[in-house]
Amino acid sequence: MRFFSDNAAPVADAVLAAMAAANKVDTAYAGDALSQGLDKAFSDLFETRVAAHWVSTGTAANALALGALCQPWRSVVCHRDAHINNDEAGAPEFFTHGAKLLAAEGEGAKITPASIRDVIDQIANDVHRVQPAAISITNATEYGLVYGPDEVGAIGALARERGLGLHMDGARFANAVAHLGCTPADVTWRAGVDVLSFGFVKNGGMSAEAIVFFKPELAAEVAIRRKRAGHLLSKGRYLAAQIHAMLADDLWLHNARAANAAAARIGAAAPARLCHPVQANEIFLRLDAAEAARLRAQGFDFYDWAPGEARFVTSWSQAAGEVDALATAIAAL
Amino acid sequence: MRFFSDNAAPVADAVLAAMAAANKVDTAYAGDALSQGLDKAFSDLFETRVAAHWVSTGTAANALALGALCQPWRSVVCHRDAHINNDEAGAPEFFTHGAKLLAAEGEGAKITPASIRDVIDQIANDVHRVQPAAISITNATEYGLVYGPDEVGAIGALARERGLGLHMDGARFANAVAHLGCTPADVTWRAGVDVLSFGFVKNGGMSAEAIVFFKPELAAEVAIRRKRAGHLLSKGRYLAAQIHAMLADDLWLHNARAANAAAARIGAAAPARLCHPVQANEIFLRLDAAEAARLRAQGFDFYDWAPGEARFVTSWSQAAGEVDALATAIAAL
Amino acid sequence: MRFFSDNAAPVADAVLAAMAAANKVDTAYAGDALSQGLDKAFSDLFETRVAAHWVSTGTAANALALGALCQPWRSVVCHRDAHINNDEAGAPEFFTHGAKLLAAEGEGAKITPASIRDVIDQIANDVHRVQPAAISITNATEYGLVYGPDEVGAIGALARERGLGLHMDGARFANAVAHLGCTPADVTWRAGVDVLSFGFVKNGGMSAEAIVFFKPELAAEVAIRRKRAGHLLSKGRYLAAQIHAMLADDLWLHNARAANAAAARIGAAAPARLCHPVQANEIFLRLDAAEAARLRAQGFDFYDWAPGEARFVTSWSQAAGEVDALATAIAAL
Amino acid sequence: MRFFSDNAAPVADAVLAAMAAANKVDTAYAGDALSQGLDKAFSDLFETRVAAHWVSTGTAANALALGALCQPWRSVVCHRDAHINNDEAGAPEFFTHGAKLLAAEGEGAKITPASIRDVIDQIANDVHRVQPAAISITNATEYGLVYGPDEVGAIGALARERGLGLHMDGARFANAVAHLGCTPADVTWRAGVDVLSFGFVKNGGMSAEAIVFFKPELAAEVAIRRKRAGHLLSKGRYLAAQIHAMLADDLWLHNARAANAAAARIGAAAPARLCHPVQANEIFLRLDAAEAARLRAQGFDFYDWAPGEARFVTSWSQAAGEVDALATAIAAL
Repeated sequence: MRFFSDNAAPVADAVLAAMAAANKVDTAYAGDALSQGLDKAFSDLFETRVAAHWVSTGTAANALALGALCQPWRSVVCHRDAHINNDEAGAPEFFTHGAKLLAAEGEGAKITPASIRDVIDQIANDVHRVQPAAISITNATEYGLVYGPDEVGAIGALARERGLGLHMDGARFANAVAHLGCTPADVTWRAGVDVLSFGFVKNGGMSAEAIVFFKPELAAEVAIRRKRAGHLLSKGRYLAAQIHAMLADDLWLHNARAANAAAARIGAAAPARLCHPVQANEIFLRLDAAEAARLRAQGFDFYDWAPGEARFVTSWSQAAGEVDALATAIAAL
Repeated sequence: MRFFSDNAAPVADAVLAAMAAANKVDTAYAGDALSQGLDKAFSDLFETRVAAHWVSTGTAANALALGALCQPWRSVVCHRDAHINNDEAGAPEFFTHGAKLLAAEGEGAKITPASIRDVIDQIANDVHRVQPAAISITNATEYGLVYGPDEVGAIGALARERGLGLHMDGARFANAVAHLGCTPADVTWRAGVDVLSFGFVKNGGMSAEAIVFFKPELAAEVAIRRKRAGHLLSKGRYLAAQIHAMLADDLWLHNARAANAAAARIGAAAPARLCHPVQANEIFLRLDAAEAARLRAQGFDFYDWAPGEARFVTSWSQAAGEVDALATAIAAL
Repeated sequence: MRFFSDNAAPVADAVLAAMAAANKVDTAYAGDALSQGLDKAFSDLFETRVAAHWVSTGTAANALALGALCQPWRSVVCHRDAHINNDEAGAPEFFTHGAKLLAAEGEGAKITPASIRDVIDQIANDVHRVQPAAISITNATEYGLVYGPDEVGAIGALARERGLGLHMDGARFANAVAHLGCTPADVTWRAGVDVLSFGFVKNGGMSAEAIVFFKPELAAEVAIRRKRAGHLLSKGRYLAAQIHAMLADDLWLHNARAANAAAARIGAAAPARLCHPVQANEIFLRLDAAEAARLRAQGFDFYDWAPGEARFVTSWSQAAGEVDALATAIAAL
Repeated sequence: MRFFSDNAAPVADAVLAAMAAANKVDTAYAGDALSQGLDKAFSDLFETRVAAHWVSTGTAANALALGALCQPWRSVVCHRDAHINNDEAGAPEFFTHGAKLLAAEGEGAKITPASIRDVIDQIANDVHRVQPAAISITNATEYGLVYGPDEVGAIGALARERGLGLHMDGARFANAVAHLGCTPADVTWRAGVDVLSFGFVKNGGMSAEAIVFFKPELAAEVAIRRKRAGHLLSKGRYLAAQIHAMLADDLWLHNARAANAAAARIGAAAPARLCHPVQANEIFLRLDAAEAARLRAQGFDFYDWAPGEARFVTSWSQAAGEVDALATAIAAL
């Protein structure tokens, strides 16, 4: 019973079906109708004109987005525990040609206007210091917390005030929206986000994420840089097909709701053990080594996050029986 | 009737089936059994111990391979018309952090020991000049010609003599081997190749190419750089599945033979028009504008390579009727 | 008797005197009055408002200038034999983060609108090709030839037409202006040049070159990138002092005239041996190995450029006796 | 009366004299006898075989050194307040092609084996995390503290244990050695340092720092990268001359002692105000705004380090009268 990572989940049937339906002679790269239709599909979803590119990983989405927002000699403010800072092998530094990531603090991997100011207000405006160019937030965060429209909006206001770009790493954007119940627009461009990495792979997709540009004028340069990074697949239609399938009938939202619900159920089984509130599809529990071993002995797979702390992730396809079993097992510890 | 690019072809049924078979809960990234099995699968195919990584584009395969062979302050010798030099948006320069590509000459995009020496013998061995680190050849070449084992071996001998790495861009490696009738080993490591970009996407795959390291000690660094470049897919098993399906029962070779046979038939229809011998699956024809227009009016799609010259590419799935029709139409011009 | 390189020449007394005069407690980096006075000094010289930065090498000047004109994913057109292409160890690639240099042809290392078009007109406007961003010309060229205002103007017109920046590598700009007898403005911004690397070190300076921005808005970013490249000296006043000394009373021009006159005299000694007209301070002669040996036996030091071809460079301080002796020796071969 | 920066100091007479003595026709770049003599001069000083290159800034020295010790996809551990982290405009990131700097903690900008382990022990050994490659310490530190041989040795032992390189930023290495009274060897290679940036500019030089390689095999690559970074001056002899003058008769040590003594005197004037012990040539004092204004009104120039904290730096040439005056003025606050 895998609660190790939502990347372990299979691909949704509708996605596979869409890929099979795309399996015919067609135009190469991103010239096909499916790829060309992404701008419209996302513009509809976000209720404003956007541009969008597919890529095959969230790391590529994030790094290309940051490259568009930050010159090599500037910096990006993010949470100390941000995925871009810790888990992408330096991809942001690679794609930006050496920009710095500046670590801000905050509970549950959420940064705030105050914690961002703590970082950037220290930076004298001279040529010796690396000047900030952008802010990046993860929604839902690496600890499964969700920024609401007001929180994003406050950061967006600071970004505008200081002339900084605002990127949202939305590897679990669907889970965030599912939790919030707001529109995708409310928590992105209406709150000041310039570029969103919109994740699908953890949520039922196979190999397609989207970079959504709320400043569509950024998209042309990124199209070049996507190719330069080896991320322009020659049969891109199979990626576009995945995304269209995820957007159709709000599959992305349904899947995220399922994952969130599973997580909520597990979290509810042991509220006193929770390291963070359960808002999206991750549960961080205080577990000592003996307890962890006992759960593993019952067949549960999960991640040792830190000494005495374990991470469980639920997926869109997590079997109800597994969820029940885990909730029961945790309650029984 | 598309003869524009083999990237336009669909995905082979066996590949789709393998992907569907992989569609279950499994380990993320490259930890699954399919990904872990690539080293053995390619070691068997190449009759020696190799290491192999999947990536989703040939550009990524080439650029990662060159990054492993060439430091930022050195250079790679390739043909002036090499794909890495002209059609990858500077990916080799990006992944190597600014190495130079040095253009060598040769008929049909084939370089030779002599033309390589013409380039590197000019380079004084001092700190002012960018020193060569590697040679890259494309097999089959950008003009559809094939280097045989002796030709590769002569370049390999020069590479060893000068302390240079040797990379083979095998976006159409299958077509080259199908033409030669030799073993994959004969035209790669036995001839001195250090790293091969082994292409599957043009030949029935969807989104999986392989970097094959005949010096397996290079693979660990590239695993890191693959992640850093955003090319470590979180559901990598679907890429590995594609490759296993292509290797099973020599599907890669059968498909390439089909594409080559189609090209041969078209080439035979107008031998006097051929710009290059037809050895793999590309046909370059002298066509004036009126002739090109006439073919297009009959429904044939192809690429205007240069004034008076057109490129036709056949795929593994090219319908026999289309091939016949094109051959007839060309002959009738 | 050294005719190997004008870098072998000593530093002019006025320059040393200016450095000694600057030897007092003063503001660090580029905050001192001498450094701050460069914009005005060059604006006066060029009869228009410019911004200027000191750096300590021509390679740094060129690479920083190109970095300002060319993004990492674009390219710079230059002559195949350009110093930036061959003799700077890949500095342009380093400072641009991996842009390509595209080699154009032309007699005497001079490129022309036609030869530039030969290169850029081949580049399809799509994401697969590296698009051009700038043109770089060397004046005087690597073979001692000089572009006049009309020639630069024709290239400048092409640059504007195609939206490309225009850089001039003026390591021997003084020698070019001395030959032309025009104003510095005529052969730079009036002819379309955006950024000039203005060399002083070969012409009597010690360690100070200038980057002159005819688009002053480029200077602020380059000030940051100069620091980032380790080129912001903490005692910058000693560099600024050198440049002011070179500009005072047109020392730069007097020195260049002296070097040019010496070269002209040597060139006149053997007109039939000249590989290129002698316009600046370099003489390229056809010399067989025996002749070269004979000259060396008489104490002359020079550079074997290519088989059967030797390069002699005269400096601002070349002793008249040495020049006479060399002219006589060559005539006597 | 400048206590703002030791970069404000003039150049020592012996250095100017050595530069004047070098002013003759000579070999270009680093081919002259002075440049070629650096390896021996530093080998003598350090009592072991070393290789050494001149560069014109400490930033270049540090960034080239780190480039030799850290691949683009790895990281360097340094103090949060290290000059390389805060005051070099991202030069380490530029020269390493995007490596990360990891901030460790410690009093007075000194890191310790424990604080280094706090950083690196968190880094799981997988491809998602940027792995450490090197440690960099500043001696004397950014707060004027000095690592002794034992402290460096403990860090050196950790570096060897973990396979990490060890770099010392010695912008004020002379001040550190002057304070310690040990040999230069004791606090560098004998304690495990691999590469030292040996500063001269703040200590009486004009524009020459040295990179000293205790692993001489690193020097050849850095010679190439120095050129590629535009740091190979064509008249390098004037830099080498500076360094030889600084090493002759231990001028570097005499000058540093003078600066340290001046700092000690100032520090002794107000021990209760000291933020850090005064060991080298920097004094950090608690001063409120009114007190700072009062000192400025008396003609003292210094740096507002942080609210309520001021930095004073003494130089090798600080006039005794100025030092007395400042000590008196501080005592009188």
